[in-house]
Amino acid sequence: MPLIHVSLRAGKPKAYRQAILDGLYRAMRDTLSVPEDDKFITITEHDEANFSYGDAYGVARSADVVYIQITVFDSRTVEQKKALFRRIAELLGESPGIRAEDVFVNVLLSAKENWSVGHGLAQFA
Amino acid sequence: MPLIHVSLRAGKPKAYRQAILDGLYRAMRDTLSVPEDDKFITITEHDEANFSYGDAYGVARSADVVYIQITVFDSRTVEQKKALFRRIAELLGESPGIRAEDVFVNVLLSAKENWSVGHGLAQFA
Amino acid sequence: MPLIHVSLRAGKPKAYRQAILDGLYRAMRDTLSVPEDDKFITITEHDEANFSYGDAYGVARSADVVYIQITVFDSRTVEQKKALFRRIAELLGESPGIRAEDVFVNVLLSAKENWSVGHGLAQFA
Repeated sequence: MPLIHVSLRAGKPKAYRQAILDGLYRAMRDTLSVPEDDKFITITEHDEANFSYGDAYGVARSADVVYIQITVFDSRTVEQKKALFRRIAELLGESPGIRAEDVFVNVLLSAKENWSVGHGLAQFA
Repeated sequence: MPLIHVSLRAGKPKAYRQAILDGLYRAMRDTLSVPEDDKFITITEHDEANFSYGDAYGVARSADVVYIQITVFDSRTVEQKKALFRRIAELLGESPGIRAEDVFVNVLLSAKENWSVGHGLAQFA
Repeated sequence: MPLIHVSLRAGKPKAYRQAILDGLYRAMRDTLSVPEDDKFITITEHDEANFSYGDAYGVARSADVVYIQITVFDSRTVEQKKALFRRIAELLGESPGIRAEDVFVNVLLSAKENWSVGHGLAQFA
C-alpha cells in the first residue's frame, strides 16, 4: 500500500500521464512485491511559476523532471529501495520516455500502524 | 497542528469538499484533542489520468476514494491513531457520504522540533 | 536535495508565486548550505473549499497562509531547522510580503538511502 504523489509541469497529454501511473505501479510490483491492484497514486500538474528545479548534484535536468514521493512501510530494505529507484527510471524511460536525469524520487517511511486502507481500520497494526 | 493533504477525483461540488474539511477537523478534535481552530488541511482534485486506485487488500474501492495523508507529532499513540482512522471513516460516511471502503488514510510522523506554526519560530521544540 | 511542497490559496499573481520559490531556495542556501541549483520545489493552488486554516496556537492567520512541507536528510540538526524556519519567514516577509503569522512550515525527515536524484541511482546511500 505505498502511497505515491507525482508532481510535474502541466501540459503533457493524458497518455503521457497515464504511462507514469502504469510505470510506477509496475515498478512497485517488480521490486516491492506489492499485491495486484495496489496502485494508490496521484499526479499534480504545475505551471511554470509553481515549479522549480535545477542541476544540483551534477544531473542535467529539464522542465520534464518528475518529482515522485513514495510513502512505504518502514520495513523496506535498502536493496529494495535501490531496485525500486532503478526500475522506476527504466520503466519511465521506456514509456512515456522520460530521460533518466529527470526522474527524481524520494521515499518516506511510515510504520504498519500508520495505515488505514479502508473501513476505518488499521489493517496492518 | 497536524497538517493534512487530501487527494480526490475532480468533479465533486463545493459542499462535498467542504464537508471533508469539516469532518477531518472534527475527527482530530474528537480523537487527538487538537485545540480549537487547528485545521490545517488542503485538498487537491485530480482528473482521471492523474489518479489511480485499485482493490488491493480486499477492499472494493471506487473512483470516490479519498487519499488522506496526515502529518502529526511522533508522540501519538497507536490507540489514538486507531481512533482517528475509525472516526474519520465514520464522519466522512455521515457527510459527504463517502463509503468506508473509499477512505484511505496514511499517517506521517514529525517530531516537535520540526514544526513552525508561524513567526519563523519552532514553537514546540 | 530537500524536496518542498507549498500549498496556498489560488489567485496570487505569477510574480508572487515565483517569489515564494526564490525565497525558499535562498533560505535553504543560507541555512542548510545546499549546493547551487538545489531547488526542487512545487506549489499547488487551492480554491476556498479546498483549503482550511485557523488561529490555533495563538497565531492570527489569514487566507494568505502558506503551508510549506520540506523533506530533508534526517541528519539536519535542531539548530539548522530553527535557522531555516526563521530565514523562511524573513525572506517571504520581504518578498512577496507574506505576514510572519501566515508562514507555516513542517519538516519531514528522510535518510540518505531514500533519495534518488536522477539516473535511477541512490546517490547518497
